[in-house]
Amino acid sequence: QELSPLYQGFEWLAPILKLLGMFLILLGSFKLAPVVLLFVEGQQEDTQVFFYSMLFTLLCGGVMVALGSLAPFNLRGRQIFLLTSLSWIVLSFFSSFPLLFGSTQLSVADAMFETISGLTTTGSTVLSGLDTMSHGILLWRAILQWLGGIGIIVMGMAILPFLQVGGMRLFQSESSDWSEKAMPRSGTIAKAIGKVYLGLTTLCIISYWLAGMNGFDALVHGLTTSATGGFANYDASMGHFADTPWILWITILFMFLGALPFVLYVHMIQGRPLPLLKDSQVRALAKILISAVVLMTLYLMTQHNWPWFEALTHAAFNVTSVVTTTGYASTDYNAWGTFAVIFFLYLMFVGGCSGSTSGGFKVFRHQLSIMLMRNQMMALLHPRGVFSQNYNGRHVPDDVIRSMVAFAFFFFATIAALALALSFMGLDFLTSFTAAVSAVANVGPGLGDTVGPAGNFSSLPDLGKAMISLGMILGRLEIVTFMILFTRAFWRA
Amino acid sequence: QELSPLYQGFEWLAPILKLLGMFLILLGSFKLAPVVLLFVEGQQEDTQVFFYSMLFTLLCGGVMVALGSLAPFNLRGRQIFLLTSLSWIVLSFFSSFPLLFGSTQLSVADAMFETISGLTTTGSTVLSGLDTMSHGILLWRAILQWLGGIGIIVMGMAILPFLQVGGMRLFQSESSDWSEKAMPRSGTIAKAIGKVYLGLTTLCIISYWLAGMNGFDALVHGLTTSATGGFANYDASMGHFADTPWILWITILFMFLGALPFVLYVHMIQGRPLPLLKDSQVRALAKILISAVVLMTLYLMTQHNWPWFEALTHAAFNVTSVVTTTGYASTDYNAWGTFAVIFFLYLMFVGGCSGSTSGGFKVFRHQLSIMLMRNQMMALLHPRGVFSQNYNGRHVPDDVIRSMVAFAFFFFATIAALALALSFMGLDFLTSFTAAVSAVANVGPGLGDTVGPAGNFSSLPDLGKAMISLGMILGRLEIVTFMILFTRAFWRA
Ligand SMILES: [K+]
Ligand SMILES: [K+]
Repeated sequence: QELSPLYQGFEWLAPILKLLGMFLILLGSFKLAPVVLLFVEGQQEDTQVFFYSMLFTLLCGGVMVALGSLAPFNLRGRQIFLLTSLSWIVLSFFSSFPLLFGSTQLSVADAMFETISGLTTTGSTVLSGLDTMSHGILLWRAILQWLGGIGIIVMGMAILPFLQVGGMRLFQSESSDWSEKAMPRSGTIAKAIGKVYLGLTTLCIISYWLAGMNGFDALVHGLTTSATGGFANYDASMGHFADTPWILWITILFMFLGALPFVLYVHMIQGRPLPLLKDSQVRALAKILISAVVLMTLYLMTQHNWPWFEALTHAAFNVTSVVTTTGYASTDYNAWGTFAVIFFLYLMFVGGCSGSTSGGFKVFRHQLSIMLMRNQMMALLHPRGVFSQNYNGRHVPDDVIRSMVAFAFFFFATIAALALALSFMGLDFLTSFTAAVSAVANVGPGLGDTVGPAGNFSSLPDLGKAMISLGMILGRLEIVTFMILFTRAFWRA
Repeated sequence: QELSPLYQGFEWLAPILKLLGMFLILLGSFKLAPVVLLFVEGQQEDTQVFFYSMLFTLLCGGVMVALGSLAPFNLRGRQIFLLTSLSWIVLSFFSSFPLLFGSTQLSVADAMFETISGLTTTGSTVLSGLDTMSHGILLWRAILQWLGGIGIIVMGMAILPFLQVGGMRLFQSESSDWSEKAMPRSGTIAKAIGKVYLGLTTLCIISYWLAGMNGFDALVHGLTTSATGGFANYDASMGHFADTPWILWITILFMFLGALPFVLYVHMIQGRPLPLLKDSQVRALAKILISAVVLMTLYLMTQHNWPWFEALTHAAFNVTSVVTTTGYASTDYNAWGTFAVIFFLYLMFVGGCSGSTSGGFKVFRHQLSIMLMRNQMMALLHPRGVFSQNYNGRHVPDDVIRSMVAFAFFFFATIAALALALSFMGLDFLTSFTAAVSAVANVGPGLGDTVGPAGNFSSLPDLGKAMISLGMILGRLEIVTFMILFTRAFWRA
């Protein structure tokens, strides 16, 4: 019996529909939190907006799950590419209603920008007047980042290695084995990681509260710190708490913890702390952070005559924030001079570890690049020599290197294209460039007066906001995962 | 009979000494041209300076050849690395005397900057008041670039492919075969290339003269155009001739011709024009140039309301000048707005063809990068597929790809480090960045008011000039050729 092409198409899309529907139901349920908060605070209008938006999201999710269940569940490579990309866009769309119709009354471009920035944990914002903003909106932004954070960990651990994107096959393990045999074990790891994420967030919230934040601030900043997201409750970002160095140091600690590979925490909890302590990527990140903080502290002390503790605190805070792609600011480091500006621009390219909540180029890719450069030097001296290609004590296959290299080229080409497009809209050199880097690396703030740590993205033209939003999604999906949908080969295969 | 380590060391250095000496004798002989010119023009003081500098150079060269001939001639891989790097530095040093002691009275940093900029065909200058400068100095600068140009062709054709630097093994051919059997044939090709270079230069000089330049201007600009060098006789660069579009279009043609692989001209003269016309790199360069010129012409017409011919001429001139890394300017394109600034910044990264006089990243590396990116996309869709790795109709071995990629990382890392170092000296963002790119890609002018097409490098601090000079040498030597001298492995092997 021949099946019609239309039904074949439906059968192909059905599992995607079903999973998207399940994600929407999850997203909808989380809208209950702002509903309750707004109701308690007596903000009737926003309560209604959130409530209806919750109902609509749950309804759409339910319909999609029902429709998707009509065909047998069968998920393969190409469908996973489509699902992964669609998830971020569809979820961002359904998350934007409260910002569109609530008290913020954002335009479509602004609302999509803010939710994409939230879910991708980029943390760039078009909102100002955060200090007096509706708590429902602030909580919702934080929830978006927190949900995005766990999405990114799962994607980096299970999906991208399986799809072999950007050299991530290096991190192929039980958790990215999708065979039926391995599924139960993968499920266990996923649950353990969920628990770790929840535990880390709770710890962060409690620490903030003990250090003197009020309950709401502790909750929101706890959510956005663990997610290395960077949305804050104040226009001055964490600069609002600059008088309490304790809070800044707690942030530094948890931003760092959020940028480590979460699977290593699971090992640690299972009684094996060694993988975390000996992991080559973790050690490299720590070394990069320490060197950059020392350098910037000395710079602030010698060139700007800051006292040592103030210099150390703000250097450590902002360096860690940019390297882990969190994007909080404790002060306007854009005003520290050209050397600092270029230095922070480079830090944007570092990125955290793979399998963490952070974005960017990622530490392991820098390590592989340096290994390539070193091997090249040796090959020039010993043309017939063969040089080991090891990472973290294991051999790195050539195809991993190739896909890492291709990722590097895609990454820089995307940033270059985005910067050129932004400059065409009349943005200045520094703004165009750093807004592009900040979006694709999911850092949040750029540099310069407009999009820098003291600025805001609201003054950008709508088309520019749309392009930056696209850049955030591209960056979050390691570019190729998304770009591949626009090749003829994808739809012909 | 055991040889002392000291003698062994001398035996190792002797062939390097001998060849350096021969280069010095060549350089010294070329100083005769300014000596004669200055003598005829009656500039007694400068005549003497050039004369003594010529004698000194010839003397040193002679002594080195004599010393080097005391040991048997035996040149191997590591010695060639050292010789190649030393050549640029030693020749620059001996070329700087007339600028140090002549009427220009430059400081050591300035004189070294100017000669390194000359020999590497970068074309950045610290001199101003060119319009009224001693003809001897102007001619000497042009000769430096012209000699540098032929040096670069030979290096790109015979030495770098042999050393397997930066993916240049792709262009390994008879001319880079150093075995004794192939030597006579290589010699023939080298001579043919020398003739082509001389012929092209002569053609360029005559064209300039016919188009209305005076004899001296035609000579100097002919030398610096064929070498894609970019030194001009006027502070306004080729803007001095902007009223004669003929001259600008002649420059465009010869800059393009200078950026093509010279070995293909030899084929053409031997009756095989097909390799030149069908060469993948040549076609790609032509496509890049045409697209960039069309885009920039439309930009000038629509955003700045320029008439079409003026827009086309200045777009074609400055785009070709930057892409071929010549570095002439027909007008201050830095003032065309941020979009143009970023666009020209990107053009600096294009570079000409391998085996030409031009510098930069080079077109073939962009082509290989795009091939890598395309293959990566296909590999994601067909994880078990094997994709052909072809360039110009031939298979590209993996080690060529690896060394190309390593070069790319070295290239960008060098630019990044240089930009950061320059920013530490108080240069602004645009200046630091574009001065770094311009130096490493051997373009000449950067962007911005200081080092842009209307600016001048003289106001930079001496340390900055020294670092930019180092950047030019690094770029010219495809970075690794020079960096390898600073590894422990090089001196231990
Ligand atoms: K962020
Ligand atoms: K040049």
